[in-house]
Amino acid sequence: MATSNRHKYGEARDVLAEMGIKLEYMEVERVEIQADDPADIASYSLDQIQEVKPFLVEDAGFYIEHYNGFPGPYSSYVLQKVRLPGVLKLMEGIDDRRASFKSVVAYKHGEEKRFFRGFVTGSVSLSVRGTGGFGYDPIFIPDEGDGSTFGEMAADEKNALSHRARAFRSFGAWFTGNG
Amino acid sequence: MATSNRHKYGEARDVLAEMGIKLEYMEVERVEIQADDPADIASYSLDQIQEVKPFLVEDAGFYIEHYNGFPGPYSSYVLQKVRLPGVLKLMEGIDDRRASFKSVVAYKHGEEKRFFRGFVTGSVSLSVRGTGGFGYDPIFIPDEGDGSTFGEMAADEKNALSHRARAFRSFGAWFTGNG
Repeated sequence: MATSNRHKYGEARDVLAEMGIKLEYMEVERVEIQADDPADIASYSLDQIQEVKPFLVEDAGFYIEHYNGFPGPYSSYVLQKVRLPGVLKLMEGIDDRRASFKSVVAYKHGEEKRFFRGFVTGSVSLSVRGTGGFGYDPIFIPDEGDGSTFGEMAADEKNALSHRARAFRSFGAWFTGNG
Repeated sequence: MATSNRHKYGEARDVLAEMGIKLEYMEVERVEIQADDPADIASYSLDQIQEVKPFLVEDAGFYIEHYNGFPGPYSSYVLQKVRLPGVLKLMEGIDDRRASFKSVVAYKHGEEKRFFRGFVTGSVSLSVRGTGGFGYDPIFIPDEGDGSTFGEMAADEKNALSHRARAFRSFGAWFTGNG
């Protein structure tokens, strides 16, 4: 897995390990393009990496309904600049707090490319809660959970529900059959 | 000038016309990369365009001090999603309302590349004011003006102060001597 984010790698490794797939960490420099769909960003990233072994990249985003999917593909940039309190300020007085996470796992082996998506719906919490996970996890309450934010969950609880785990399980199911 | 933004082209054309330079409009598809410095984005754009005649691209951003320069290079994306009222919500209760616009004009002729920067400082207004200009103009009050937003100014008033006009004048001064 080519990434500069150790958190992402850790989550992916745990999910795939349960399926008997061993994932290695690969640090690479790459430019990311501006695009609305994480699959476009991930696809462009794939093409920049010269590697004969099969490898994958993952791109994810946090999408706030009221703001037309903002910050979406720029989630990490926005978080770095605005921080979680800034995102919560943007939600002050907004009734529609629905949000979702999307993940795209993009796989390449030689000329073959495959994309696997994962998705989780939920809402933006009223305050920052929990220290687990990373990114927007402390302000995201998944619909299928018990009202906890991803930040308040243990890694395996988050992996039972998360967009990233779902995308990687979808990849893993295909890979164990075809890889 | 390669752009998909007619407003930008119009401002650039007017500024360069005063210097005796005729600017033509050139519509091209290009990917934009994610980068903090508009010069990096503009440079990458230059390299994607195959053109024997001299041409230029411009990249600009709106930088809010309190939010560490957000939205910066993602200004047009953020505006499209969050809209001006969302940006003003983000500024509610924030004392430091300083902001600036930056522009980079990137010129290419054969193998030669040149970059020209323009800059204007000011503050974020408390409400959306004026219908002139485009983008963040209705919420930006330049320090050197009379308290009006760019959106409340006539085109020539804005061009006397704006980041884009400054970058293009800097380019024009060089081009008339060297182009």
